[in-house]
Amino acid sequence: MAVQAPTAPADVYAEVQHFYARQMRDLDSGEAETWAGTFTEDGAFKPPSLPEPVRGRPALTEGARQAAAGLAAAGETHRHYVGMLTVTPADDGSLTAESLVSIVAVPRGGPARLHLVCVCRDVLVREAGELLVRDRVVTRDDRP
Amino acid sequence: MAVQAPTAPADVYAEVQHFYARQMRDLDSGEAETWAGTFTEDGAFKPPSLPEPVRGRPALTEGARQAAAGLAAAGETHRHYVGMLTVTPADDGSLTAESLVSIVAVPRGGPARLHLVCVCRDVLVREAGELLVRDRVVTRDDRP
Amino acid sequence: MAVQAPTAPADVYAEVQHFYARQMRDLDSGEAETWAGTFTEDGAFKPPSLPEPVRGRPALTEGARQAAAGLAAAGETHRHYVGMLTVTPADDGSLTAESLVSIVAVPRGGPARLHLVCVCRDVLVREAGELLVRDRVVTRDDRP
Repeated sequence: MAVQAPTAPADVYAEVQHFYARQMRDLDSGEAETWAGTFTEDGAFKPPSLPEPVRGRPALTEGARQAAAGLAAAGETHRHYVGMLTVTPADDGSLTAESLVSIVAVPRGGPARLHLVCVCRDVLVREAGELLVRDRVVTRDDRP
Repeated sequence: MAVQAPTAPADVYAEVQHFYARQMRDLDSGEAETWAGTFTEDGAFKPPSLPEPVRGRPALTEGARQAAAGLAAAGETHRHYVGMLTVTPADDGSLTAESLVSIVAVPRGGPARLHLVCVCRDVLVREAGELLVRDRVVTRDDRP
Repeated sequence: MAVQAPTAPADVYAEVQHFYARQMRDLDSGEAETWAGTFTEDGAFKPPSLPEPVRGRPALTEGARQAAAGLAAAGETHRHYVGMLTVTPADDGSLTAESLVSIVAVPRGGPARLHLVCVCRDVLVREAGELLVRDRVVTRDDRP
């Protein structure tokens, strides 16, 4: 068997779990600016739908606002579930966090449905004690 | 960025994760009295379907029994998944635990389906070393 | 109320969460031999579809290869989500880990769908510092 890369200790793991719970709650609540503030100033987010990453908090805020407006117009709420999380410390002090993310769509009046599943690979760094995303790459299983 | 409220340390977070895994297992197994015993004596549970909370272990037990009987009559099992959990200590020693809960319905013969998604906000207190729910408020995204 | 069995401390709980995230990632990626290496040499896996457990790494590898080939032929990816995990230490040093596992199927082109939900009961042991499954029993709610 291959030797596994060491994983983050329990306190860091719990901190990262809290980080995602709050970050996704901000996103799903339409708190676009708060959500963008969980990235570094020049943080990059490469979603599967775009050829290039969205970079920097103003662009991230704008993207989240547009997504929230689209959902509001459609009368839907999205809920992101992060699961199957691994957190691996790198030599430079950053953390690589890999997870599965399920998005559940809830139309007003129901029923809820599984919208899509994606793989999220983040590089997290700590600034002034807070974890922030420096780089996020999201991929989907249903797209080439 | 706003400063985040401090979250529970890793040992408490793991304890709360275990608490929910067991509590929901009791509920989904129809162990109504055991489930009600995870609330304080005067614990309150405000589900989205009722205008007032159910209060106290006898009423909680009866509610869980009725729910289990309804599922048995329908030939279905429900499974509650708690995710996206944050645990925040309050000054009085209680814990505020917020989570997303997905309920999967499994009819005998299948297939499983996503039944609904709700937000659960609990106040947890410790009595004789055990965590108990003092107050639970559950809301749904698909209802006004 | 019944006194609860003591649960694993936070560091072990985080380790087991990482264990499952990696083990299921191996399985879902078709890394059959790596996946089988997360069982002990004589590890047993009793799935709901078979009358007897699959035993030993060569048989486990072969089973995972066949499953991966079937999915590839069907143009689907499966993703296993482990949730509602409890980890309980036994007197012999082993850990009993119980969880709900949701399997999401993602056809090429989408949409993702909930495939099935099962209950996983593992006995985990530590060999040379690494956690391994000695015994796995998986049951389904939709089957007698």
